[in-house]
Amino acid sequence: MSAEAGRNARRLSLLGSTGSIGEQTLSVVADFPDRFQVTALAAGRNVALLAEQIRRFRPTLVSVAEDAGARELRERLGADAPEIRVGAAGLIAVAEHEADLVVAGLVGAVGMAPTLAAIRAGRDVALANKEVMVMAGALVGREVERAGVRLLPVDSEHSAIFQALAGQRAEDVEKLILTASGGPFRTWSAEEIAKATVKQALDHPNWNMGPKITIDSASLMNKGLEVIEARWLFGVTPDRIEVVVHPQSIVHSLVEFVDGSVLAQLGMPDMRGPIALALSHPERLPLQVPRLDLATAGRLDFETPDTKRFPCLDLAFAALAGGEAAPAVLNAANEVSVAAFLAGGMAFPRIAATNAAVLDAWLDEHRGETVADLAEIEAADAWARGRAEQLLDGSGAGPRPTQEEASGC
Amino acid sequence: MSAEAGRNARRLSLLGSTGSIGEQTLSVVADFPDRFQVTALAAGRNVALLAEQIRRFRPTLVSVAEDAGARELRERLGADAPEIRVGAAGLIAVAEHEADLVVAGLVGAVGMAPTLAAIRAGRDVALANKEVMVMAGALVGREVERAGVRLLPVDSEHSAIFQALAGQRAEDVEKLILTASGGPFRTWSAEEIAKATVKQALDHPNWNMGPKITIDSASLMNKGLEVIEARWLFGVTPDRIEVVVHPQSIVHSLVEFVDGSVLAQLGMPDMRGPIALALSHPERLPLQVPRLDLATAGRLDFETPDTKRFPCLDLAFAALAGGEAAPAVLNAANEVSVAAFLAGGMAFPRIAATNAAVLDAWLDEHRGETVADLAEIEAADAWARGRAEQLLDGSGAGPRPTQEEASGC
Repeated sequence: MSAEAGRNARRLSLLGSTGSIGEQTLSVVADFPDRFQVTALAAGRNVALLAEQIRRFRPTLVSVAEDAGARELRERLGADAPEIRVGAAGLIAVAEHEADLVVAGLVGAVGMAPTLAAIRAGRDVALANKEVMVMAGALVGREVERAGVRLLPVDSEHSAIFQALAGQRAEDVEKLILTASGGPFRTWSAEEIAKATVKQALDHPNWNMGPKITIDSASLMNKGLEVIEARWLFGVTPDRIEVVVHPQSIVHSLVEFVDGSVLAQLGMPDMRGPIALALSHPERLPLQVPRLDLATAGRLDFETPDTKRFPCLDLAFAALAGGEAAPAVLNAANEVSVAAFLAGGMAFPRIAATNAAVLDAWLDEHRGETVADLAEIEAADAWARGRAEQLLDGSGAGPRPTQEEASGC
Repeated sequence: MSAEAGRNARRLSLLGSTGSIGEQTLSVVADFPDRFQVTALAAGRNVALLAEQIRRFRPTLVSVAEDAGARELRERLGADAPEIRVGAAGLIAVAEHEADLVVAGLVGAVGMAPTLAAIRAGRDVALANKEVMVMAGALVGREVERAGVRLLPVDSEHSAIFQALAGQRAEDVEKLILTASGGPFRTWSAEEIAKATVKQALDHPNWNMGPKITIDSASLMNKGLEVIEARWLFGVTPDRIEVVVHPQSIVHSLVEFVDGSVLAQLGMPDMRGPIALALSHPERLPLQVPRLDLATAGRLDFETPDTKRFPCLDLAFAALAGGEAAPAVLNAANEVSVAAFLAGGMAFPRIAATNAAVLDAWLDEHRGETVADLAEIEAADAWARGRAEQLLDGSGAGPRPTQEEASGC
C-alpha cells in the first residue's frame, strides 16, 4: 500500500496499464495520491514502463504477456518485485484482485474475459475497452445487473452522455447524438484516402490515443463501435442514436429530450477528464487540465457524416440490425483488417471493404439470430477473424502483427 | 374548470397573461389540455385579448389594470365573465388564487409584490419576471426557503443552467457561463449604434419577446440583469459568473465544473421550451417545437462581449459589487431610460449613460450597504427612478410612457 494513500482511498486495478488509457489513469492517480491506491497492474510487453509504474505506485500484483517479460521484470525490480503473473490467467488474476474499481483499459477482444471476471468478482468497472460492449453488450449488461456493480464509461462520448443523462428521467430521452471528429481524412477525397499512409492515418487531429483506436477514428469505425456501445450502455435502440461530425472535438456528445431540449457535455479534448470522472464518480476532482474558453475556441462546426467515404459507420448500424452476434463479427473483422493496415502495404479503404465483406458473408447465413452465451459470440468472433484473414491473405496484404501488438497495450 | 383538464391537472395562475410569456404559456397549455388547468389570469390593458383567453381557458378569477378595462370585459363576456379584479390588488388576488404554480410573467418592478404574494401563499413560481430577483434576490430567496416552495426559472439562460445542474453536486460547480445573442447591434460600430432607431433596436435576431426585454437585449442590459438573477437563483458569487456572446442563441447557457467538464443546454430559440419545463418539471412534455439539427445549423460562434460598445453588462457586475440595493437602483434607472428610448427621440447610448450616471450617484452615497427589507429596496428604486427622470428631462428626451405601457403586459 502506498504510504501516501488515505485510509478511504479508492483501490484501483488496471487492465492495460502501459497503454494510453492506463498511462493517463496513472497520471490522474499521481495527482490525487490520497484519493487512490493502485493494487494491481496488467500490461503486455512493455516491461520497462511497467517496472517504472511498479516502483511508483506499488501494486501488490502485476501481470505481463509472457514468461520472458516476467523474468525481465524480476531482474529489473529484484527484491521490490510484487507477485507477477503471466498471460490470460494473469489478466484474470489482476481483474479479480482486491480493488474497488477495475479500469478496463485493454484494447480489443482480449479484454472481454478479464472484464467479465472483474464484474463477476463484484468490482465496479471503468470501461474504456469498448469491444467488451460491442461484442457482448446484452450479456455484459445482464452480468452487471446480477453482480450489482457499476459500469462507468471512459470513452469521452459515452462519458458525455452519462453526464448529460444525470438527473434526467430515462423516459424523457428522445435520442443520443454522438460527435465524431471526422479523423485525419475528414476533408480528404476518396482518391486521397485510397493513397493514405499508416503515418497519415495515425495523425489524429485532436486526441492522444493508442494506434488501433486512432486508425478506427480515421475510418469512422471507432464511431460505429461507439454507437454499438451506446446502444447497450444506455439501453437505447439504434434508431435513437445519431452521429454528427464535429471537427473540434469540444462537444463530446449530446442527448436530446422529448421537449426538444438538448444537453451536451463539452471540454478540451483530454482523456483525463472522463477517466477521472469514472474514477471518482459521483464526485468530481479538481483536475489541472486545460480549460475550455469558448470565445478563444471561436467556433464549433457540425456536419453530417459522409458514409460514402467512410462506410464503416453504416456497417455498425447494419450489424446492430443484423443480429446479436453481428457486432462481434464486425469488430473481429475490423481488428484483423486494422492490424493488417498497421503492418503496412495495404490500402486504407481495404479496412472497410474487408469489414463489409465479412459482415455480409455472416449476415447471409445468420441474419436475425440471437445468441445464448459468450461461447457463441466467441465462435462468431473466431469465424470472422478467419474469414478476414482469408480475404486479406488472398489480397497480398502482407504480414500481420499478432493481436497483442495491434492492441497497443 | 375546463372540461378537458384531467383530475390531476396542474392548476396555473398567470401574472401577465397577454404579454409574450403569458401568450406562450397559454400556447403550451393549449397543447396539453389534460395536464393543466388555468385558474386565474392577470393582464394590463389588452382587454380584447384577455377576453379571448377567458373564453378559451375559463379561469375563475381575472385582473386588469383599470376600472375601465373591467367594465369593458364585463360587456364583452356578459354572463360568462369570471370574477374581475383591478389594479395592484387585482394582481395580488391572482397571485394568491387557488393554484399549484404561479407563472410570474410580468415585466419590470410591477411584478415584485404579486410574486412575493404568490410565494408567501405557498405557490410554486415559474419566474420569467427577472426584475424580482434583480431587485431583491436575497430577500426572495429567504421567502422561498421559508415558504418551502420551488422557484423555477423561465428565462432560457437560467433554465439552461437549471437543466445543466440537475444531478450534479453544488460543490463541484466552478462557474456559470451565460450566453448572449449580442442583439441586433452586435456587429454595429459605436457610431452606428448612436444613430439606431427604436425599430432597429426592436429587431431581435433570434428571440420573440416583449419590447422592454428586446431593448435590453440590444444594450446587453438584459444579460446584466440575468447575471444578477443567476447570482441569486443559483447562489453563485459574481466572480463565478461569465458571459459569452453566441449569435445563434442555440447554446442557451453552460456550467463549468471543477474537473474542467462543461455541461450545456441547447435548442432552437423558442421560449415554449423553458416555459413548458417550468410548468411540468420534473417531467418533460413532448413539445411540438422545431428540433435542433446541428449539421443544419452548421456552426456555432462565440466571442467575448464588447463592454465598450455595450457598457450595461459591466454595470451589472458593478451593481452586484456595490451593495445589496445597487442592482435595484440599476434596474429602476434602466426601466426609466428604456421607456424614454421606446417613446422616441432619444439616442440609444443614452440608456447606458443614464443607467451609469444613476448607479454611480447612488454608489457615491451608499456603496457596500446592506438592506434590511423590501421597503429599503423600494426606496432605492424610487430614488433611482426620480434621478433617471431628472437626467432625462434635463436632456430633452421627450415624453415618456407610463411604467405599465413600457412593461409590455
